[in-house]
Amino acid sequence: MDEGFSASQLTLRRPAGKISTARVEADEFIIASGVFNGKTTGTPLCILIPNTAQHSTDYENAPRIARPGHADYTAQCKYHGYEDFRGGGHFSGRITAALVAAGAVVIPALRAKGIKLGTHIASLHRIEDRAFGDIAADIDTLNSSAFAVLDSEAAEQMKKAAEEAAEAGDSVGGVLETAVTGLPAGVGEPWFDTLEGVLSHALYSIPAIKGVQFGAGFDLADGFGSEFNDPLRNEDGRIITLTNNNGGINGGITNGMPVMFRCAVKPTPSIYSEQKSIDLKTLENADLQIKGRHDPSIIHRARVVVDSMTALVLYDVLSGRYGTDWFCGRSAD
Amino acid sequence: MDEGFSASQLTLRRPAGKISTARVEADEFIIASGVFNGKTTGTPLCILIPNTAQHSTDYENAPRIARPGHADYTAQCKYHGYEDFRGGGHFSGRITAALVAAGAVVIPALRAKGIKLGTHIASLHRIEDRAFGDIAADIDTLNSSAFAVLDSEAAEQMKKAAEEAAEAGDSVGGVLETAVTGLPAGVGEPWFDTLEGVLSHALYSIPAIKGVQFGAGFDLADGFGSEFNDPLRNEDGRIITLTNNNGGINGGITNGMPVMFRCAVKPTPSIYSEQKSIDLKTLENADLQIKGRHDPSIIHRARVVVDSMTALVLYDVLSGRYGTDWFCGRSAD
Amino acid sequence: MDEGFSASQLTLRRPAGKISTARVEADEFIIASGVFNGKTTGTPLCILIPNTAQHSTDYENAPRIARPGHADYTAQCKYHGYEDFRGGGHFSGRITAALVAAGAVVIPALRAKGIKLGTHIASLHRIEDRAFGDIAADIDTLNSSAFAVLDSEAAEQMKKAAEEAAEAGDSVGGVLETAVTGLPAGVGEPWFDTLEGVLSHALYSIPAIKGVQFGAGFDLADGFGSEFNDPLRNEDGRIITLTNNNGGINGGITNGMPVMFRCAVKPTPSIYSEQKSIDLKTLENADLQIKGRHDPSIIHRARVVVDSMTALVLYDVLSGRYGTDWFCGRSAD
Amino acid sequence: MDEGFSASQLTLRRPAGKISTARVEADEFIIASGVFNGKTTGTPLCILIPNTAQHSTDYENAPRIARPGHADYTAQCKYHGYEDFRGGGHFSGRITAALVAAGAVVIPALRAKGIKLGTHIASLHRIEDRAFGDIAADIDTLNSSAFAVLDSEAAEQMKKAAEEAAEAGDSVGGVLETAVTGLPAGVGEPWFDTLEGVLSHALYSIPAIKGVQFGAGFDLADGFGSEFNDPLRNEDGRIITLTNNNGGINGGITNGMPVMFRCAVKPTPSIYSEQKSIDLKTLENADLQIKGRHDPSIIHRARVVVDSMTALVLYDVLSGRYGTDWFCGRSAD
Repeated sequence: MDEGFSASQLTLRRPAGKISTARVEADEFIIASGVFNGKTTGTPLCILIPNTAQHSTDYENAPRIARPGHADYTAQCKYHGYEDFRGGGHFSGRITAALVAAGAVVIPALRAKGIKLGTHIASLHRIEDRAFGDIAADIDTLNSSAFAVLDSEAAEQMKKAAEEAAEAGDSVGGVLETAVTGLPAGVGEPWFDTLEGVLSHALYSIPAIKGVQFGAGFDLADGFGSEFNDPLRNEDGRIITLTNNNGGINGGITNGMPVMFRCAVKPTPSIYSEQKSIDLKTLENADLQIKGRHDPSIIHRARVVVDSMTALVLYDVLSGRYGTDWFCGRSAD
Repeated sequence: MDEGFSASQLTLRRPAGKISTARVEADEFIIASGVFNGKTTGTPLCILIPNTAQHSTDYENAPRIARPGHADYTAQCKYHGYEDFRGGGHFSGRITAALVAAGAVVIPALRAKGIKLGTHIASLHRIEDRAFGDIAADIDTLNSSAFAVLDSEAAEQMKKAAEEAAEAGDSVGGVLETAVTGLPAGVGEPWFDTLEGVLSHALYSIPAIKGVQFGAGFDLADGFGSEFNDPLRNEDGRIITLTNNNGGINGGITNGMPVMFRCAVKPTPSIYSEQKSIDLKTLENADLQIKGRHDPSIIHRARVVVDSMTALVLYDVLSGRYGTDWFCGRSAD
Repeated sequence: MDEGFSASQLTLRRPAGKISTARVEADEFIIASGVFNGKTTGTPLCILIPNTAQHSTDYENAPRIARPGHADYTAQCKYHGYEDFRGGGHFSGRITAALVAAGAVVIPALRAKGIKLGTHIASLHRIEDRAFGDIAADIDTLNSSAFAVLDSEAAEQMKKAAEEAAEAGDSVGGVLETAVTGLPAGVGEPWFDTLEGVLSHALYSIPAIKGVQFGAGFDLADGFGSEFNDPLRNEDGRIITLTNNNGGINGGITNGMPVMFRCAVKPTPSIYSEQKSIDLKTLENADLQIKGRHDPSIIHRARVVVDSMTALVLYDVLSGRYGTDWFCGRSAD
Repeated sequence: MDEGFSASQLTLRRPAGKISTARVEADEFIIASGVFNGKTTGTPLCILIPNTAQHSTDYENAPRIARPGHADYTAQCKYHGYEDFRGGGHFSGRITAALVAAGAVVIPALRAKGIKLGTHIASLHRIEDRAFGDIAADIDTLNSSAFAVLDSEAAEQMKKAAEEAAEAGDSVGGVLETAVTGLPAGVGEPWFDTLEGVLSHALYSIPAIKGVQFGAGFDLADGFGSEFNDPLRNEDGRIITLTNNNGGINGGITNGMPVMFRCAVKPTPSIYSEQKSIDLKTLENADLQIKGRHDPSIIHRARVVVDSMTALVLYDVLSGRYGTDWFCGRSAD
């Protein structure tokens, strides 16, 4: 983190509404270090978000029986039983609040350099949002929306699908699509640290993401080279591509077009239906009936995390090319 | 690279056949350092693969007009015109030979620990191979096949589709699916270095890969939690999941099931049809007619690279957990 | 940090006595994450040490005039004026409390593997302690001493020298010598990550350290090869060297002898005598008269930090070779 | 390595003269990748320096008996006997030729930014060179000298001392002192990556270096704060310190004064006198009589390596702050 960013009016985004959990988490935070006179200092920025709403009784039975689709069993394999299994421990989605806090500092810094980003729910349980149109305007729309869908009718259908899944004791997933505008051409590395590579590396830290694709992604696999090559043109002195099937990246490096990617978000694994599983203490077969309050979908929450993680990666990559002084508006010579 | 691996009979895999380029590359190699008495020494292993077949006249006109879908324009943006543009420079797929050479050392080391991996062409231009069945047996089949398709009829159709694209001056893409068996449960990190994250980071270095997904990947986005949670069972003392929609990974950590992932490979961008582009010297619009000899598909070559890159990542992750001595059969105490 | 360490009785070491500052710092701490049932969980261990005794009036005039020997001016150059200059900001020696907290967890983990370490004040303002004798016993003595000097007469002279310097409004420095026993032979890398390199890299983070040397260090420069080569012998089946001028490290790798190194600690730069300096706001010349309470020496405090930093590096290097599971008493196969 | 550096006239520095080895090493090199039209391309720069003069008979007996002071025994501990023991394998000082080759590219890039560096033999076997005077002029003198000593009388005495040691079948060490001018103030990190830390980390890779100190180094330990604080002054608009006991670095960050440090170089461990040791195959005691041709001192060769390693670290640190584009003369906006 470089110095001089305004951090005093830090506001963390969190979603609300009917399909979100009834659990109230205050999301109040304490800036423990790294801010002086309302600006970041260059010292590590430590933001504490106390976990105020731990209903340990909700989880009373859960830790003994592994929740399928969660990390309960793999955590035990990795940590040899020392893991804090209450509420999923550090595998809990609540941990992403820290990423959102970091994003809240970095996103304005990118914006000050003309770089904007936003994410919409491209689909939720097969219900599709409209595609990005005027990307810059759509980003602004998304960033002021509680439920990040561009087509309001699709938004209603998505909410309805999530509510129906909840009523059936089930959950749904979807696809998030992110657009980044204003990135200079020439950013990224050809080998090992391609922009696709460093972004996907980070994005896979977000719980429930099981796929990441750039541009037309898996659709590219089905077509012809002649359809997907993105012809180049000089448009009034600006080099563009006529299509953007490569998602603004060629050879791991930005080409000046919007960077576009999609993340597959799996259905929330916490469902109410009875599930086959094992008892983690005995490793014997046992059936699981999850109690407590859980969201039928986390995709509308995850999009804020995707934005934040993306911003952190871009900030890092841009600092590498232009220097840590660049974001402070300093030039080297 | 740890010491003691047998490197003296190093054999590099390369594909042949009608749909591959007519360009002959001898793939002879020189081990410049790191081997003594037929074993790796722990010193950096330097393998040189001279580029013997550079027909510079083939590329005579190409570098002036950016090839759409290639990195010609982005390389110029990044390297300010200092890049070696002949044959795509270090963006050329030929560079992957170095990864295959490294994989040739590491793959047997993994195999000595009971870890096997293989990749098939899951689809080529919408023609689908059969799914993995007996995974360990299928891996063996694939690793002895020049064209890595499990269903021989699908293989013929795929070759035919690639040849037809070639005749039409066009190219095709596809999807590669990789399976890894024998990985211990508990490998990977919950945050930042999830196994999905470190694998995808590396895989995106392979030219033409534009999507990576684990387990059911983007299909997970369309279903219900109740369908995809992978119920756990104790099967004769071994913990398994009844399905493997999460691709052997929960919370970024292996669960002991086969690790499964898919990569989207875009159609080879070098096609013979005329394409709109720009002249890189003047940045004016210019049309491009690619000459020379080019493959209509690189997917059957890319699978060897995917295997190698995967093996390198797994070797690294396993060394972290069990120590660099582990692969030498040494124990610490 | 690996899991399963006992962290519940964490005790932070801090020195006391006449030559230490009168400033009271409670050193109470809060474990905010990473401990469950009295053991580390594998989750990042967050230990908060609130800074309770900030007398901002002490520093009222200081920040405007750079304190020579401190980082006031360089901080302004690096952070463009956004730095928190109160009390030296994150350049303050108080930040080392965090390293000591981390060391308090790792040192017992090393000890459980038979690795012990300790540091004595080898000299303070030219007054020399006796050399290490029975190293293992001396380490135990040092770790139960508030003032880490092996020769009690030298200890008294050192304290007297520090007090005299304090009375004269001045400060003194010294040399710390650290010994580590029980390290296996074969740890470290020959190039780039030599054990000397990774240790010195970390040690230079400790404020006031301006020199690091291994074994006979700079004395090696003055003698003959025949004096310093450390002849090897097999002593009842154990390979030893008859002398230890190389400090237990050859070619960057441990040889099984105690690892020995020395750190030069400069005199505390906060002195009461008037000093020439500049005003940081105007960059004009200005004289400085430091007020407040300051130690005439920090070397007796720094030794705890040196121990902790050394332990952190060794833990890291050993985990690399033997795996993160090693410290949990797990074997890989 | 960034692009656009001139690499076509790459000249590797190597010393000559009576006290150097009679072994002739041609130091011819091949640029295998990374240069196009006489400039670096941004692709990894691969420079091969074939080892042409390997007299394996010289080493016939050596590998069986560990050479004291060398890494023969520690290499066997680390690499479990797989190491290439001929001529010291990759512990050989000849490997430093690769660092010198890299330095030959980076040093001119630093110079183009006004940053100059040079190293002299501050002492050889207690014979002292004069101190740096007009540093910039002295650096130029050193860089055109085969034997880097500022005082020609001291130079003759040093050579004589080395020759006398050679005649006695022994070897000598010394101290190298390096000065860097033109570094901007504000470069380095306060914690973990202090400039002292990253420089010493790299310098300890150079064989025979056993001590690194900055500014007055270990002498700082003996004096008073009032002597060593380096008072600040504004001298005609430029901020300087009146002394430079801190070696141009405060709090890990450059202050704009020359960066000054010293490295202790131990006597060459290859001596002709009989030495006690062990047989590496049986681990039994055995005496060693080294044959072949060896230098009585390597310090006059090591200084070129110190320059190169320093330049590589500074290039890296400066790229971090000002961006990789900075060295190409590009600005970000």
